Amino acid sequence: MAISTEEQKQAARPVAKADDNVVFVGKKPTMSYVLAAITQFNNGMKEVKIRARGRSISRAVDVAEVVKNKFLSNLKKEIETATEEITDERKNKLNVSTITISLKM
Amino acid sequence: MAISTEEQKQAARPVAKADDNVVFVGKKPTMSYVLAAITQFNNGMKEVKIRARGRSISRAVDVAEVVKNKFLSNLKKEIETATEEITDERKNKLNVSTITISLKM
Repeated sequence: MAISTEEQKQAARPVAKADDNVVFVGKKPTMSYVLAAITQFNNGMKEVKIRARGRSISRAVDVAEVVKNKFLSNLKKEIETATEEITDERKNKLNVSTITISLKM
Repeated sequence: MAISTEEQKQAARPVAKADDNVVFVGKKPTMSYVLAAITQFNNGMKEVKIRARGRSISRAVDVAEVVKNKFLSNLKKEIETATEEITDERKNKLNVSTITISLKM
């Protein structure tokens, strides 16, 4: 069976745990997460995912924009949004939006 | 010259100003913008763009998620982010992130 170019590319990527290339954006300053993402690329990652939920989503967009515009301008960007159901401390169920911005070399 | 199916579809769309199908998300409650977007679709629009910048980006994601998950589940979603330079009242230049979420029938 022939192996496609895409499969060869996949195989050539460095072996890493699934979450190694994910930067979870929370309430720290934007530049903390920018630094974390840049560090991942400098460590040889070809793709870094910037994830956030709720009010941190706008900061995640800031992080991706700063990484792309100020540091690594030839990155490709793919964006997905979704809804997660979470349960708070009073056991109420809440829907919260999430964003995943994939930056690829 | 043959007219492609895509061009026919374009021609069949109702004539409208460029910004007619844009919902700008600001600081009002999420459901105000959800209602605005649903109304656009009910008026015959095939595509509605949900736009926001800065801290309102997370609310724009909420709006798109609610429209898709609670009302019109077969919509297709395309997301773009960008950076705009704005000048504040003291004439300082600031970069602000923007998001445009296109929802298509």
